[in-house]
Amino acid sequence: MSQQIRVAIAGYGNLGRGVEAALKQNPDMQLVGVFSRREPSTVELLDSKVPVYPMADIEQYQDAVDVMILCGGSKSDLPEQGPYLAQFFNTVDSFDTHAKVNEHHAALDKAARQSGHLAMLSGGWDPGVFSLNRLFGESILPEGETYTFWGKGLSQGHSDAVRRVPGVKRGVQYTLPSEEAIARVRSGEQPTLSTREKHKRECFVVLKDDADAETVRNSIVTMPDYFADYDTTVNFIDEATFDKEHSSMPHGGFVIRSGLTGEGNKQTIEYSLALGSNPEFTASVLVAYTRAVHRLASSGEVGARTVFDIAPGLLSPKDPAQLRKELL
Amino acid sequence: MSQQIRVAIAGYGNLGRGVEAALKQNPDMQLVGVFSRREPSTVELLDSKVPVYPMADIEQYQDAVDVMILCGGSKSDLPEQGPYLAQFFNTVDSFDTHAKVNEHHAALDKAARQSGHLAMLSGGWDPGVFSLNRLFGESILPEGETYTFWGKGLSQGHSDAVRRVPGVKRGVQYTLPSEEAIARVRSGEQPTLSTREKHKRECFVVLKDDADAETVRNSIVTMPDYFADYDTTVNFIDEATFDKEHSSMPHGGFVIRSGLTGEGNKQTIEYSLALGSNPEFTASVLVAYTRAVHRLASSGEVGARTVFDIAPGLLSPKDPAQLRKELL
Repeated sequence: MSQQIRVAIAGYGNLGRGVEAALKQNPDMQLVGVFSRREPSTVELLDSKVPVYPMADIEQYQDAVDVMILCGGSKSDLPEQGPYLAQFFNTVDSFDTHAKVNEHHAALDKAARQSGHLAMLSGGWDPGVFSLNRLFGESILPEGETYTFWGKGLSQGHSDAVRRVPGVKRGVQYTLPSEEAIARVRSGEQPTLSTREKHKRECFVVLKDDADAETVRNSIVTMPDYFADYDTTVNFIDEATFDKEHSSMPHGGFVIRSGLTGEGNKQTIEYSLALGSNPEFTASVLVAYTRAVHRLASSGEVGARTVFDIAPGLLSPKDPAQLRKELL
Repeated sequence: MSQQIRVAIAGYGNLGRGVEAALKQNPDMQLVGVFSRREPSTVELLDSKVPVYPMADIEQYQDAVDVMILCGGSKSDLPEQGPYLAQFFNTVDSFDTHAKVNEHHAALDKAARQSGHLAMLSGGWDPGVFSLNRLFGESILPEGETYTFWGKGLSQGHSDAVRRVPGVKRGVQYTLPSEEAIARVRSGEQPTLSTREKHKRECFVVLKDDADAETVRNSIVTMPDYFADYDTTVNFIDEATFDKEHSSMPHGGFVIRSGLTGEGNKQTIEYSLALGSNPEFTASVLVAYTRAVHRLASSGEVGARTVFDIAPGLLSPKDPAQLRKELL
């Protein structure tokens, strides 16, 4: 094998752990280190052989790393770390604050061009491969409508809201796509649907000993902003069942393009994900794009890039002739 | 609007007609002419205002056309026309003879590089957007299996076989994906499935007056190579129903990647098409890639390209900042 791509992780939470696991599935890449703001000795990796370094020392490692995968949060970590680290590294991130994506792009582009690096933003599934499917859908079928449904997936914000209700000991909330809404879209009807019409909410709750189920249910389903305007189901379960069935982080969803061609022929493109682990899938997308970023940077390209700017073949370890032979 | 992309069509059958219709949905492109081996006055276009020229004169129009879309067949037209026309034009084709794709690529690449053009091969849905999804699937989830199912779709070769059976007046055959097989794949089981296990066959037949239904059915379902090894259903209908329900060209299918990440979390990516018109959808893909080919050629790129080599953002009429804002 030719030389492995040397990859490092900046920030080690669920996503960083997912990246560590994904790198093990890609033999052309090698994890060379993890950077954390925590005291390195307290950071437990899946694979303990890789060193953990203080985030503060990260600049010192610029010659040892081909691509840095940024695994911090979009709210405060990435807007700051992204442009800073693009001064020293080729980077990949999963920035998902939709309203600020062009702002983040501009900051990364400036830093990366000045230092001669490549910075890929907003990898993952939404934004990421869902974005790609929205793009392919409307480009191929310009007369039509695009629908994005999310779920079945664990929603952190809504789970927190459930847990704040008096009488709730443990609680999670799943967002579910509405089967009726999906059926209408698949039929080619091109309905106008609000986010609320497209989704339902399902809660699983463990009650405190003295709590009344009906009171808790009512507090949840009538909660303004979070649940009042949705079709919400609340299920009460015991703690053992909760631990067994509700400790993973599933997610997924659908991107459906419904269009017309010619004299009114219906055409439907549907892309869906059913993810056993949301952070591990996001990490797997970041790792595939890490390969592309390394290739583009090695060929001299600089600046910020998104999934829209990167030729799909660059994601694969296979060479172009092999890709054409095996996959075209 | 900035200047329109001037597009021409070489070969005017179902696919060429689909391209004509698709171009009308894309205001940044303009059909400037159709080339046919038939006598031009006998070629009836959807839009009669566009001139039809003899294929023999095509070289004369190289300064009037930005991209030539080749709508001939893969068996004998494209292997000859592709390298020939790449001497004079940027081209897009839907070459689908899988075993010869690298050979076709090499011939196009040589002709296009010598003349300074760009030649995009194997656009459409399979090969085309299905190929892309096979690539994304295995690149994102390297530990897993990819499954392609075709249908529900009209099969020309099998329909011909049905029509050769004595007693059959009219007949069509649809290939259907096996629901059981799809359910096994979606479950994450990663079964080993042959093409036969993945598909069923359904025939609709109008009998000749003197024909015996059971004899015809038996001849079909026991036909070697075509039907004997499949689960085949034969439906007998009257001619009015046949005309009403079986004169369009639906097709579609599924590409499913079933993989594992981390400590055995199941991840499923599913891409599916339900196409009211197979040639119109293929044409729509070719037209979107025509925009990309024009942009790449305008920036000085030459040689052969496939869907794997082309950044998705180039398919859209929107500029990069607008794409990030609206679709990322």
